[in-house]
Amino acid sequence: MFAKTSEVKVMRDPVHGYVHVQDQLIWDLINSRWVQRLRRIRQLGGAYVVYHCAEHTRFSHSLGVYEIARRMCYEVPDIDHALNEKEKMTVMAAALLHDSGHGPYSHAFESISHTSHESVTCRVIEHDPEIRAILENGYHGMAKNVADVIRHKSANPLLSQMISSQLDADRMDYLLRDAYFTGTTYGTFDLERILRTLRVENDQLMIKASGVYAVENYIMARYHMYWQVYYHPTARAYEAILRALFQRLKDSGMLEEEYVLPQFKALREGKKLSLEEYFRLDENACNYGFEMLEQCNDPILRDLSSRLLDRRLFKFTDYSPREVRRLSKVLKEKGYDPKYYLMKDEVGQRPYVPYNGEAGSIFVLMEDGSIRELSNASNIVYSLIHGPDRDEKKIFIPAL
Amino acid sequence: MFAKTSEVKVMRDPVHGYVHVQDQLIWDLINSRWVQRLRRIRQLGGAYVVYHCAEHTRFSHSLGVYEIARRMCYEVPDIDHALNEKEKMTVMAAALLHDSGHGPYSHAFESISHTSHESVTCRVIEHDPEIRAILENGYHGMAKNVADVIRHKSANPLLSQMISSQLDADRMDYLLRDAYFTGTTYGTFDLERILRTLRVENDQLMIKASGVYAVENYIMARYHMYWQVYYHPTARAYEAILRALFQRLKDSGMLEEEYVLPQFKALREGKKLSLEEYFRLDENACNYGFEMLEQCNDPILRDLSSRLLDRRLFKFTDYSPREVRRLSKVLKEKGYDPKYYLMKDEVGQRPYVPYNGEAGSIFVLMEDGSIRELSNASNIVYSLIHGPDRDEKKIFIPAL
Amino acid sequence: MFAKTSEVKVMRDPVHGYVHVQDQLIWDLINSRWVQRLRRIRQLGGAYVVYHCAEHTRFSHSLGVYEIARRMCYEVPDIDHALNEKEKMTVMAAALLHDSGHGPYSHAFESISHTSHESVTCRVIEHDPEIRAILENGYHGMAKNVADVIRHKSANPLLSQMISSQLDADRMDYLLRDAYFTGTTYGTFDLERILRTLRVENDQLMIKASGVYAVENYIMARYHMYWQVYYHPTARAYEAILRALFQRLKDSGMLEEEYVLPQFKALREGKKLSLEEYFRLDENACNYGFEMLEQCNDPILRDLSSRLLDRRLFKFTDYSPREVRRLSKVLKEKGYDPKYYLMKDEVGQRPYVPYNGEAGSIFVLMEDGSIRELSNASNIVYSLIHGPDRDEKKIFIPAL
Amino acid sequence: MFAKTSEVKVMRDPVHGYVHVQDQLIWDLINSRWVQRLRRIRQLGGAYVVYHCAEHTRFSHSLGVYEIARRMCYEVPDIDHALNEKEKMTVMAAALLHDSGHGPYSHAFESISHTSHESVTCRVIEHDPEIRAILENGYHGMAKNVADVIRHKSANPLLSQMISSQLDADRMDYLLRDAYFTGTTYGTFDLERILRTLRVENDQLMIKASGVYAVENYIMARYHMYWQVYYHPTARAYEAILRALFQRLKDSGMLEEEYVLPQFKALREGKKLSLEEYFRLDENACNYGFEMLEQCNDPILRDLSSRLLDRRLFKFTDYSPREVRRLSKVLKEKGYDPKYYLMKDEVGQRPYVPYNGEAGSIFVLMEDGSIRELSNASNIVYSLIHGPDRDEKKIFIPAL
Repeated sequence: MFAKTSEVKVMRDPVHGYVHVQDQLIWDLINSRWVQRLRRIRQLGGAYVVYHCAEHTRFSHSLGVYEIARRMCYEVPDIDHALNEKEKMTVMAAALLHDSGHGPYSHAFESISHTSHESVTCRVIEHDPEIRAILENGYHGMAKNVADVIRHKSANPLLSQMISSQLDADRMDYLLRDAYFTGTTYGTFDLERILRTLRVENDQLMIKASGVYAVENYIMARYHMYWQVYYHPTARAYEAILRALFQRLKDSGMLEEEYVLPQFKALREGKKLSLEEYFRLDENACNYGFEMLEQCNDPILRDLSSRLLDRRLFKFTDYSPREVRRLSKVLKEKGYDPKYYLMKDEVGQRPYVPYNGEAGSIFVLMEDGSIRELSNASNIVYSLIHGPDRDEKKIFIPAL
Repeated sequence: MFAKTSEVKVMRDPVHGYVHVQDQLIWDLINSRWVQRLRRIRQLGGAYVVYHCAEHTRFSHSLGVYEIARRMCYEVPDIDHALNEKEKMTVMAAALLHDSGHGPYSHAFESISHTSHESVTCRVIEHDPEIRAILENGYHGMAKNVADVIRHKSANPLLSQMISSQLDADRMDYLLRDAYFTGTTYGTFDLERILRTLRVENDQLMIKASGVYAVENYIMARYHMYWQVYYHPTARAYEAILRALFQRLKDSGMLEEEYVLPQFKALREGKKLSLEEYFRLDENACNYGFEMLEQCNDPILRDLSSRLLDRRLFKFTDYSPREVRRLSKVLKEKGYDPKYYLMKDEVGQRPYVPYNGEAGSIFVLMEDGSIRELSNASNIVYSLIHGPDRDEKKIFIPAL
Repeated sequence: MFAKTSEVKVMRDPVHGYVHVQDQLIWDLINSRWVQRLRRIRQLGGAYVVYHCAEHTRFSHSLGVYEIARRMCYEVPDIDHALNEKEKMTVMAAALLHDSGHGPYSHAFESISHTSHESVTCRVIEHDPEIRAILENGYHGMAKNVADVIRHKSANPLLSQMISSQLDADRMDYLLRDAYFTGTTYGTFDLERILRTLRVENDQLMIKASGVYAVENYIMARYHMYWQVYYHPTARAYEAILRALFQRLKDSGMLEEEYVLPQFKALREGKKLSLEEYFRLDENACNYGFEMLEQCNDPILRDLSSRLLDRRLFKFTDYSPREVRRLSKVLKEKGYDPKYYLMKDEVGQRPYVPYNGEAGSIFVLMEDGSIRELSNASNIVYSLIHGPDRDEKKIFIPAL
Repeated sequence: MFAKTSEVKVMRDPVHGYVHVQDQLIWDLINSRWVQRLRRIRQLGGAYVVYHCAEHTRFSHSLGVYEIARRMCYEVPDIDHALNEKEKMTVMAAALLHDSGHGPYSHAFESISHTSHESVTCRVIEHDPEIRAILENGYHGMAKNVADVIRHKSANPLLSQMISSQLDADRMDYLLRDAYFTGTTYGTFDLERILRTLRVENDQLMIKASGVYAVENYIMARYHMYWQVYYHPTARAYEAILRALFQRLKDSGMLEEEYVLPQFKALREGKKLSLEEYFRLDENACNYGFEMLEQCNDPILRDLSSRLLDRRLFKFTDYSPREVRRLSKVLKEKGYDPKYYLMKDEVGQRPYVPYNGEAGSIFVLMEDGSIRELSNASNIVYSLIHGPDRDEKKIFIPAL
């Protein structure tokens, strides 16, 4: 039904060995502008200031999620049987496109631009002429169906589970990929084992009991990657400066036009970005925008830009209201405006949360055929979710 | 003070890259009969019937423990400063020799022979003429000091902690090594990170707070290796047959002399083995002993031997008194004597136990200089030790 | 046509991830006595005296060759189309059984026993009742067909090429496996790439031009493994003692029966071994045989045995007739009989030999559809086969 | 003599495990603007269009070269003894700074800007105020000494050999790093072995005979990386468009100011760039420059820019004068100007060239103490340098 490429195309990938493409539709999507744009957006935002090799992009991650989804479709017998060819193509396309609406600097940018990348992704899928044409050429109505997978509104809930749940192609790729490129070993788990033990029961993806060890490892991997990489305080210090800089961009009145990146102007004015403006807002543009701001007439913007570019980051300390008051006073005495020079954030992470809204639970198919939620099948996971929480609230300020 | 080898000797090791030797004393120990004998004893006993590549020996493990101990002595600054040259040589020798008294088939053999490998190890160190001479040539009294490290009676408790505690060179080598040779990924953890964050405070080995993640990973690795490898029911089925066979050897009256390995005769008679008899009781000898028993006149010994050699193992099922009664009856009807054909065992493992006798606790040096027991410094570990226990009791019988 | 196992059986293998079995016939072969016996024969003979982790067995190698052959059958489209189900089962069985007639200590033993392992393998396949029954249960005439693959007499020459040529499943597994277990990096090459670029033209296995780099790497890997591992002079010193010991066994007149392993008696007398005698001649038995000889009344046998067991090996030096004369004289003066204490060997290896008898050439399918012998498609290989030869002839004697 | 950092600083690096810094001078250099700028220049220029993970930067490569140089200084005994502390600091600083003058897109940019990165590197070292101050703070005259290492004019030739010869820290890092990030296995070789066998004789770095295998592997790795990665025709197609675009930039008369990146203006005018202009010419800026050119009034610049950004690359075919004539005609008929749409290049690589100018030869210290040039100590290398050359000349044009 769907056109095949003349031969299987393979792309060398250090995480998966090769990414395999044999559908012309997938190949066309890979070569589209919006997917190629993901080469200009790093997977890990500011984490490269901590892990100097973490320069990998959302493009390679998107290929990886596609590759895992493809393997699920054809190498996991239960899924192979559960899905027809249209559904397989739909979920593979959704896997490849799931991050296409991502802006620069990972999730930091979402709070700056007040957009969610999922909603932009759905706009791209349904409204970018090139992407839409490729999909509708697959079958009539495919663009909406792909977007529905992203929105968790798919007619077949299995499709959303495969790329967006607590044990999905997205998370599995990013843990392995981020571990590989940061050089940490924390994110590794046994992907082959998990794929081998995936089952479908009543349209629900689950894991066979013999795969529980591998899932325990995956959950620990996730926990450690959060605290060691994604929530590393130095990466958060970088993102704190990003937020301060964009706040200042909004607050600063007069700026010489020539030193303000056109894409920043819409953000300054709080306007909703058109798809084309959003397209042009990649990390190349932002970084070049910071290089221009280094030359502008606002000393705070000049300072914050050069801090980002030359990696003169903020220091961090544990949050307390008393400490905020004390440091605000010190900063003011030194001539720093705390609005831009005393930033806060709070992060928290649970290794695994049962009954977690759209992301759902992880279910285990026991040897006797019964189905249990993961924490009822794993002592380790039971212990973890009944143990104490971990949150971390920090203040970020310049070295004084 | 101690003689050096003419140049640094290196032995290629897949786990550590190289094992480095620059002390003549260590080189002489490696070349001694008792250490070379460890080439004839597998590290993992019967696990090779599950993991077909798990043929690695206690010889390579012993070199690995030595290598980690050597790196601790010279690459961990706190240990480098805390120990003098005599103590370093003592702990490196103890690391190399710590398993020299091990019999065949790992711990299964200890219950058969009613010996502990530690006590034989101490006899070897203090009483084997070759080993003793090498050590006493190092310094007067060294043999006793090395044995005292094994016995947890060392004048400096740090030495025992380095090779026998809850975070020691022994465990760190075997987890990495067993993971490598079984091909599982569960046993991997970040050895470099742990070595980098080891500290000594008040003669107590501890870990810096920034190493807690790596220790959490190590503890999870240990947990998973126990359940996935060491306690794998098929490996336990192999060991169940070993126990049955030796029980039968004791019970069977008349056996043709020519088919009973000389080393088995002492075991039959329940006599304590001399060091030299013990020396000759390696896995080559045992396996050859089973090959001979395949030809003897006792049908039970013939059957059990060929089960070991040809891997016709027992099946397993969960234990219950009712199930034992039911299966005993079935076995008898089929002509099997349950004394040798219905074996039981029970295994249990806690990922980490604070205040654990000789093995002690793992301590963490916090950033403020305070010291905490690990479960007070890690949410993960706290959760694990307060979660439910895991035990597994099984019955092993032939396929019927 | 062929019975399937109830589910796909997988065995964890560090080299291939998993070995997959879904045919009952293959599963039965794996569980046969002759295949299980390969667990008692090391893959690398004496190399473990140099590389202390090289304890892996011909059992795991045989599984690996089977796994590569299986992947060739089902994952290389040209082979998948070229072979029918009978041929696939035949070649997979041949892959699994290709080393079943191997004796202890790799090729060293073949010169001692004057047998070739291929001829014993064919005897096992055609005459061992268990193996023969399993095969003939597959289809009538299968035992002969499997043996014919080993003998290079298969009706379809592709089958022999797959497991015994210059680029075959056997060599590909052993290079990767030996590299993994020795811990050297020299043997690694890109198996995935080679499998992806295999083609069949006119019943001849060949490689697509885009796979030439991977084949160049494979040939270099082979070259380096030969000189770094297989021909390592210390491993050859071990084998020299083996040859000396068996020579002495033949020459020594009176030996106490009780200290001579029954299996050695046939070798002493130069009799052809029956299959059952051969079966019992594994490395456990040999090593136990050496342990017994350590106690016999012949001082040369006692010495040579303990040299093998305690790793007191011969030294080596470059061969010259003058050096042989000089050393013979010295040895005699010291009381050593040069017949057993001055051993010689010569080894030579070409990285790749075109038109190499049964092993044949490696052919390349060029982009224009023409076919070239490898050295006409690779500058590197052309250079290597026109460069100087390398041979190494050495003398082995005890440390004096 | 040189100030130490308060504790050893480590940066996680997937290639080396960790990069270790314990000198304040090195730490200051890492944090300088010019070194941080290398985060904005990819190591492999256009190869990321072939290998989608090859996004690693010259910053991580520079840290890697430093790390290898540091290990040479302290872990290779001969070098440790041969160099004093000043020389060690000089060579480590040179290693870290050796690429600091690199422009965007690897070597493609050098032909566009008619600058050599080495000469800019020396300008940065001697004339950038920040770098110069850090170095002169180390010792008086250090900036010139560091530049002299780059220029092969060092008083001690060993320093240049360590970071710029045929077996140097630069090549060793990039082969390993590029292999890691492309996901190819071709670039791997045994760095540990090479470091272990490095020797210094008469101020000349050389390798012990026992390291020749590792060097053979390194040379093969280099050969394969050149043809598989650096000279991959698709990467060269990307660079062909880069050259065409910059040619067009020079040739196009009127361009709207607002769409021409300021940094491009100097290139258009063929002016020599000031250090500060050069500083601002990183890959962020260039990519943003291409994004602007997509909107300019020159259709050729618009087309070439979008080809770079959206990866619509040129096709390639083998060069011949006849083919050039034929394709020129076809292109003109289709409305393409061959000056920008028919690009040529020629690449060639010898695996190893003895007596190679500044890069010199690789020398081998034989067991008898004699010194040989590598091709006289290795059959493999001898064969390679006497075998046929390989050159590849290609034409690049748009898909028609």
